[in-house]
Amino acid sequence: MENHKRGRQSFALPEPPVITAWSSVAGKKEAEGPLGHTFDETSRDTYFGQSTWEQAEEHMQQRSLRILARKAGIPQEQFGLVFSGDLLNQCIGSSFALRNTGIPHIGLYGACSTMAESLLMASMAVAGGFTDNAVAMTSSHFASSERQYRFPLGYGGQRTPCAQWTVTGSGAALVCSQGQGPRITACTIGTVTDLGIKDANNMGCAMAPAAYSTIRAHFEDLKTGPEDFDLIVTGDLGQLGKEILLELARRDGVSLGGKLTDCGTLVFDNTKQDVHSGGSGCGCSAITLCGDLLGKLSSGKLKRILFCGTGALLSPTSTQQGLPIPGVCHAVSLKGGKD
Amino acid sequence: MENHKRGRQSFALPEPPVITAWSSVAGKKEAEGPLGHTFDETSRDTYFGQSTWEQAEEHMQQRSLRILARKAGIPQEQFGLVFSGDLLNQCIGSSFALRNTGIPHIGLYGACSTMAESLLMASMAVAGGFTDNAVAMTSSHFASSERQYRFPLGYGGQRTPCAQWTVTGSGAALVCSQGQGPRITACTIGTVTDLGIKDANNMGCAMAPAAYSTIRAHFEDLKTGPEDFDLIVTGDLGQLGKEILLELARRDGVSLGGKLTDCGTLVFDNTKQDVHSGGSGCGCSAITLCGDLLGKLSSGKLKRILFCGTGALLSPTSTQQGLPIPGVCHAVSLKGGKD
Repeated sequence: MENHKRGRQSFALPEPPVITAWSSVAGKKEAEGPLGHTFDETSRDTYFGQSTWEQAEEHMQQRSLRILARKAGIPQEQFGLVFSGDLLNQCIGSSFALRNTGIPHIGLYGACSTMAESLLMASMAVAGGFTDNAVAMTSSHFASSERQYRFPLGYGGQRTPCAQWTVTGSGAALVCSQGQGPRITACTIGTVTDLGIKDANNMGCAMAPAAYSTIRAHFEDLKTGPEDFDLIVTGDLGQLGKEILLELARRDGVSLGGKLTDCGTLVFDNTKQDVHSGGSGCGCSAITLCGDLLGKLSSGKLKRILFCGTGALLSPTSTQQGLPIPGVCHAVSLKGGKD
Repeated sequence: MENHKRGRQSFALPEPPVITAWSSVAGKKEAEGPLGHTFDETSRDTYFGQSTWEQAEEHMQQRSLRILARKAGIPQEQFGLVFSGDLLNQCIGSSFALRNTGIPHIGLYGACSTMAESLLMASMAVAGGFTDNAVAMTSSHFASSERQYRFPLGYGGQRTPCAQWTVTGSGAALVCSQGQGPRITACTIGTVTDLGIKDANNMGCAMAPAAYSTIRAHFEDLKTGPEDFDLIVTGDLGQLGKEILLELARRDGVSLGGKLTDCGTLVFDNTKQDVHSGGSGCGCSAITLCGDLLGKLSSGKLKRILFCGTGALLSPTSTQQGLPIPGVCHAVSLKGGKD
């Protein structure tokens, strides 16, 4: 048995699994944003032809999976394993999407870190020889999230300046033991970090400490640093969370400045789209990765990135009970397909 | 890279990971049941000294983890990775329990299949060389489940005869690459099965087809059958679901009769404890495994069992929207420590 473990939280993949295909499905607002041209499919409304927003989310994942199969050039039935999860109570977006497909499924819950979490688990499953290929997938939906976590949309509640806008979208990536495409060279598994932040309208602030903790662990465990990456991409801290992360790193003597970006600040045009602190939701980092970022890694525009999915592990119940918001962040190191 | 994959849904572990320690924490009703003597810790009320039922669930997982460390003879900080999940919206029982422990965490959602799902993932992580050891853990709580899925307890709603009683309890198992204890020899990953059952008070019926699908896949993929096991233990189909599973197998020409039992029928005394169709919840199969079953495998009373965690992947939202209840089942083949 090969030992992949490195340090406390990480593992290295000397025979790196390859992301041979990826797909993204997004809503209208996302289609109008700066990454609109990178999505495989978009919808003109929030329902995607379904009768509820929750079913729209199921539909987005089904479409992601179908487009992924088409782009990979294999029938969907040949997917070996799907790792997926979402924000809906009991993750119904994910489990309903996979009903009766016959594809083995491992359900995950990592809040908005799910794209990184599922990619990390897919790498583990493929690199360990447990499956020939594995899909990492997730979704979120602005309207289903708002009514579940906050208020019914019809209530017309005011959003605070530090609030983020949940992305309507789904992304999927196919991880294979061989093939052409961006490669996964190492992963860092997050720990649950809780510094006592209680403001459920300021998720970026709650997640930033987890993001820094995981980035630092990645650097230490794998003897690497910001200089080894073209980009360190968190998702989804938003504008405020990104600034807090930069500050946490600076206080620790680490400069991320030139390298750090955040999916929450990439997916919308914050000056025109009225999203306050930026995008959020599992779908935010999913559609940013499974479009723009993997595309740039594939074409050689980016050579190495550290993709860090961040999740706020709260529920409306924990918030109503006055509890703080724990955060988690999982990191995946990606290498361009051409080098 | 060693190829562990067998058939469509399974993987074999020629160097089987070992469950070197296990722990269980349970509520008052569970302590009064037939397995009461097998739990490490029980509570005299439903609060476990906390102020809410959700925090009681967090506390149960914290206690399971602490007792597991004590029984394994290592400090909790030496756990390499925890796979855990629960039924609470956004799995707050699991993520809150791990706050600031510094232990890498992968959050899962598999409804009541979580004990098997986490054990399966822990086996993958250990056998693949991604960590030295991994904990599989879950919990459920009768009172937090009732108010989340059904009615406030104070409402005093009548339960239907096919309803099951959510177990208040948490179980944890430590999976290591080496050591003494029951071994995990193979696993089968479930597919999401939906036959259109819509009665949210009859979960056993909704999950039985998934259970049969996974058991059949396990037999086919690994060229094995009921004759190779002392027990096939599903959890938690309850009395009615178990009968449906037997019928599904019988129609397919497979006799499980002499070997099949279900955690939902083991954990309570159905004649005295007024639980209708039996126990349920993530904690049901968790405390049955991490007490009675692993104890018997360790002492040699059982030689080989197939542990099949079953989950109903519904949410109150999907039920209110008139949708059916998808089911999933993950199977783990366990071999006694002495042979």
